[in-house]
Amino acid sequence: MVIVMAPDATQRDLDEVVGLVTTAGGEAFVSRGVNRTIVGLVGDLDQFEALNLRGMAGVLDVVRISVPYKLVSRENHPARSTVRVGGVPIGPDSVTLIAGPCAVETPEQTLAAAQMAKAAGATLLRGGAYKPRTSPYAFQGLGEAGLRILADVRAETGLPIVTEVVDAHDVELVASYADMLQVGTRNMQNFALLQAVGAAGRPVMLKRGMTATIEEWLMAAEYVAQRGNLDIVLCERGIRTFEKATRNTLDVSAVPVAQRLSHLPVIIDPSHSGGRRDLVLPLTRAAIAVGADGVIIDVHPQPEKALCDGPQALVDGDLTELARVMRTFPEAMGRALTLGPDLAGEAPALVG
Amino acid sequence: MVIVMAPDATQRDLDEVVGLVTTAGGEAFVSRGVNRTIVGLVGDLDQFEALNLRGMAGVLDVVRISVPYKLVSRENHPARSTVRVGGVPIGPDSVTLIAGPCAVETPEQTLAAAQMAKAAGATLLRGGAYKPRTSPYAFQGLGEAGLRILADVRAETGLPIVTEVVDAHDVELVASYADMLQVGTRNMQNFALLQAVGAAGRPVMLKRGMTATIEEWLMAAEYVAQRGNLDIVLCERGIRTFEKATRNTLDVSAVPVAQRLSHLPVIIDPSHSGGRRDLVLPLTRAAIAVGADGVIIDVHPQPEKALCDGPQALVDGDLTELARVMRTFPEAMGRALTLGPDLAGEAPALVG
Amino acid sequence: MVIVMAPDATQRDLDEVVGLVTTAGGEAFVSRGVNRTIVGLVGDLDQFEALNLRGMAGVLDVVRISVPYKLVSRENHPARSTVRVGGVPIGPDSVTLIAGPCAVETPEQTLAAAQMAKAAGATLLRGGAYKPRTSPYAFQGLGEAGLRILADVRAETGLPIVTEVVDAHDVELVASYADMLQVGTRNMQNFALLQAVGAAGRPVMLKRGMTATIEEWLMAAEYVAQRGNLDIVLCERGIRTFEKATRNTLDVSAVPVAQRLSHLPVIIDPSHSGGRRDLVLPLTRAAIAVGADGVIIDVHPQPEKALCDGPQALVDGDLTELARVMRTFPEAMGRALTLGPDLAGEAPALVG
Amino acid sequence: MVIVMAPDATQRDLDEVVGLVTTAGGEAFVSRGVNRTIVGLVGDLDQFEALNLRGMAGVLDVVRISVPYKLVSRENHPARSTVRVGGVPIGPDSVTLIAGPCAVETPEQTLAAAQMAKAAGATLLRGGAYKPRTSPYAFQGLGEAGLRILADVRAETGLPIVTEVVDAHDVELVASYADMLQVGTRNMQNFALLQAVGAAGRPVMLKRGMTATIEEWLMAAEYVAQRGNLDIVLCERGIRTFEKATRNTLDVSAVPVAQRLSHLPVIIDPSHSGGRRDLVLPLTRAAIAVGADGVIIDVHPQPEKALCDGPQALVDGDLTELARVMRTFPEAMGRALTLGPDLAGEAPALVG
Repeated sequence: MVIVMAPDATQRDLDEVVGLVTTAGGEAFVSRGVNRTIVGLVGDLDQFEALNLRGMAGVLDVVRISVPYKLVSRENHPARSTVRVGGVPIGPDSVTLIAGPCAVETPEQTLAAAQMAKAAGATLLRGGAYKPRTSPYAFQGLGEAGLRILADVRAETGLPIVTEVVDAHDVELVASYADMLQVGTRNMQNFALLQAVGAAGRPVMLKRGMTATIEEWLMAAEYVAQRGNLDIVLCERGIRTFEKATRNTLDVSAVPVAQRLSHLPVIIDPSHSGGRRDLVLPLTRAAIAVGADGVIIDVHPQPEKALCDGPQALVDGDLTELARVMRTFPEAMGRALTLGPDLAGEAPALVG
Repeated sequence: MVIVMAPDATQRDLDEVVGLVTTAGGEAFVSRGVNRTIVGLVGDLDQFEALNLRGMAGVLDVVRISVPYKLVSRENHPARSTVRVGGVPIGPDSVTLIAGPCAVETPEQTLAAAQMAKAAGATLLRGGAYKPRTSPYAFQGLGEAGLRILADVRAETGLPIVTEVVDAHDVELVASYADMLQVGTRNMQNFALLQAVGAAGRPVMLKRGMTATIEEWLMAAEYVAQRGNLDIVLCERGIRTFEKATRNTLDVSAVPVAQRLSHLPVIIDPSHSGGRRDLVLPLTRAAIAVGADGVIIDVHPQPEKALCDGPQALVDGDLTELARVMRTFPEAMGRALTLGPDLAGEAPALVG
Repeated sequence: MVIVMAPDATQRDLDEVVGLVTTAGGEAFVSRGVNRTIVGLVGDLDQFEALNLRGMAGVLDVVRISVPYKLVSRENHPARSTVRVGGVPIGPDSVTLIAGPCAVETPEQTLAAAQMAKAAGATLLRGGAYKPRTSPYAFQGLGEAGLRILADVRAETGLPIVTEVVDAHDVELVASYADMLQVGTRNMQNFALLQAVGAAGRPVMLKRGMTATIEEWLMAAEYVAQRGNLDIVLCERGIRTFEKATRNTLDVSAVPVAQRLSHLPVIIDPSHSGGRRDLVLPLTRAAIAVGADGVIIDVHPQPEKALCDGPQALVDGDLTELARVMRTFPEAMGRALTLGPDLAGEAPALVG
Repeated sequence: MVIVMAPDATQRDLDEVVGLVTTAGGEAFVSRGVNRTIVGLVGDLDQFEALNLRGMAGVLDVVRISVPYKLVSRENHPARSTVRVGGVPIGPDSVTLIAGPCAVETPEQTLAAAQMAKAAGATLLRGGAYKPRTSPYAFQGLGEAGLRILADVRAETGLPIVTEVVDAHDVELVASYADMLQVGTRNMQNFALLQAVGAAGRPVMLKRGMTATIEEWLMAAEYVAQRGNLDIVLCERGIRTFEKATRNTLDVSAVPVAQRLSHLPVIIDPSHSGGRRDLVLPLTRAAIAVGADGVIIDVHPQPEKALCDGPQALVDGDLTELARVMRTFPEAMGRALTLGPDLAGEAPALVG
């Protein structure tokens, strides 16, 4: 942390800053320039934050230098992590395809979508039973009935389930069905929810807030991690910008940036980024090429009848091409498509 | 609602669109141009939304024309509303000053801040007992102990209390102390929370999400209203833009725009918009001048010791000027500073 | 300037940084922390910039501390400046109204608009003869014929002229007619144009780029100033954000921020910010209340026939209210409406 | 074009709208709904624009439906175009690598960079002799001396030259050296420059303004095309958003969107998007995977000594990997790396 003194700061202002830092157990290094004096601080940053140095007389600016998150930071954990969801790995060694319907509507629709997903190479099933909707008049999801459908389809297809939870007090219920809990973009700073999923004993997929900086996203992950859960997968899903030709602007650069700052896996949602079916495959290719550890894609057997986000769901005719992309592009990256449960992280079965 | 057909749409595509709309009980008016054909729809919009017309063959775009919110819209409620908080009005007839500390820290600090607020013309006390913080390592508020302090200070000063609630399951508790429930910027799309405050029987202050459009803000208000609570005050508090000289960019235009679209009162938070003490008074003046129905301002007896947002709190020396602004600028607008509980809306005292 | 070394920087990396700075004639102060080492630099910043320190091994970040503009900075020029345009002052002592048509169309329309402007309190006439238009198919202005109309209207009304120049090679011609040269938002970083107007011997109004930071705006002013012209007025006109309810988002905070960083006067354009007639008066009031040194407003005798931006021009019926605002709000600020040419800065007429 | 009437519009308002449209030679189709009446217009859009319908009594909104650009639109030109630069194609059949130094500094540096570029697979050389810089105190380029260096390096390496022009009045000079003229991000709406390059008889690379919508970008291309030059390559180079971890946010979605709206080739600049060396290769892979027709990349033999943007230039060690990416990823897309001049479009050599 560096304190920049104002040009008209007095010696007394400077002494008070140094005194306060020292009293708080830190060290202060003063560098005097022709126009400005700066003070470099060494010690406990949280304590310095609490001092409110920016409010002191003569202080022009306070520049923080180290990152404000710890558990999810790569500084103290240089190796990139792999998160296992029902045995399926998401991490640096392969590229994982997660697919399924935006919303669970009926058993038939969900099963059909899951079979489409599996045929294209998916090893995890997505599907929403609780939907956060901008309008109170829009379809809000089937709730627990939807979770039961997902569980049935898992039994039928063998695909572990990724599903969203929107209220801290539903976490236990959702976790009793789901293999992975998803926190959506509108809830990225719903801190009560983050803490609840952190304590739920399930891997978490944390979508980036549509207007969150990468740093805020990692701070949100820190909330989850702080409750003892480091099985977190970050998901970039487009940010809000002035451009309106696409629903959001997919920030592909966020993948290498977040992977450099954090050890957590990072995937991309090309369906919600663009909001248009014709963009899903190009953005899927870009996601894999930029280094994402996976993609999560909407598919629907009859998107013209979908209750949620139909215009962006892939349909039958697109899935052959998706399967081709999932074979070709991971290979160009020197990675494999994740083929199924990876037992490396499981306890070995002992044989007498 | 208007459907724009693609240049290469066939007659059959068009017939199917018209047929579907008609079957759903609507009317479809076809206009053929040289390059494009458009179809105007008349009927129940919610039903049209459910048809997923955008996904049909030959459809290029679907343009919605009427607003998607109803209860908070000014279309069906032309007169602007006044919301009463512990008897204090917020509405078109006066300008209301809400002031107090960002966070409740101690009884002494809260009382001192309330007295500063009152001296400057405030008739409502703000103060946070539950604080949503970006970092899990930052001060999160005193919780119920903070609510008790607020209640004691209300008893001492007579100022009704505005305080934030961050979790749907705390709503009942907070409502048992507070005169008005505040929903913060990070929770503007926390729909579980919106529904809970909608059912709590207290007026609600709904801050605009830092990256929410005005339409999304009004949709969030619709969530509250839909539960039967129309005592909602909208609060503009700055939006996220590329400019980093200020913490957020105060969108003053949002006040007249929202007042034109909705009958609800609209106030401004000049403290969180700018994030800098030297901007609070200029932005307060601008807020009143643009037509805001009130302002909500951070004050603190010793901001250099504040646990939250000290750099933006007004201090003793600023309050004389704040009091002057609150006398002068409402008058230039032909309005009065709200002076205290307005009994107009209360049951009249009967006289024998 | 502060250099932040990476956690894995070696002693040799550090020595090379210090050596390079010292060789370049600067001083380097090293502060070692537990996790990070920082180096504070004192000396010639331009020279440090040229060293490309950010590219050196072991360097994580380079944080610039002092401002990159000099001539327009308030650091070396604490008193706020007044710019005189044909004798009319724009500066801290009064509030100046500039008004007129967006585009000069005919002599009659321009004269009528000028008379409307004058009646509302304007002392400077705006009007465009060269219009930068997003579409090549839109009206591009009358060119020199428009300048001649403006000169005739100046002769008739006594109002000095503010008009835009869009091409460096028209500057001499436009300057031969105009009292003040306007550089528009799309040209804020047209450096050839900035240098040409800097050499033209006329005051300059520099509109903020619709996506320029305040720092970039001041750097653009520095381009003009560097050619010897410090008669620059900054004009905030709204920035581009995600919000689409208004054409741009008026950044009122930019006024006090720019006035604190620079000694130049700062005005606001409420017409182009909102792009809607119903927002012009509220934004004008907010502009004056936040401390702007003037406003520039579109008026048109028949906006429904305007060739450019008709929907935002004030019409006859609005001007009584504009005149009222221009009397009331400067007064609430303790300022006067600029009433006409101020001869304070002119050579006094000697009397025998 | 569709006109939406206000809820309180009168029959007379409607009649006047219809009358005006009809008088102007258009047709107006009225559709009456329960809450709203809409009018669909068929005819000459430019003429409708000039009517200023939005300003008429009773008109709530005017929604434009067809695109405002014509020559660059794909509507009238369904096949995607190939632009040839000194015989080297940029278009849908291959992926073209353009590389070289950000700024031409010395003959040695430029030649070394060109040889690095060629070894990595480049068939066009980039290099700036005129540099638009935010600060007037920064290096502005060598001017014509730089152009001569580029011409010498072209003679030595056989690589045609792409170079920026920043002032309309330098276009002829720059065109006398360059094979392709580049218009930079800050000049995308410098309309005088666009018209000058449109008349210069050279292919043009038009960078997207850092805050331009895709529609504005295509309108800027229309300015060039309108002067008779359709040899335009669009270049996405990152847009300005709230995220500050990268210099700009690369908008990969803009490639398929622009390719769908326009027949012009679209390439990506991964160097200026991210502004960081470690992002160049990931973003290059994403660019090719999303379908870009080429990439333009900064390389420098000694980036730590670069006078411009050294931190983002690729260095020797990166080029082996760049060469590998340029072999592998076009192939995964079913395309080839452009290998050299394509004579398909040239006049055949006649043989006696």
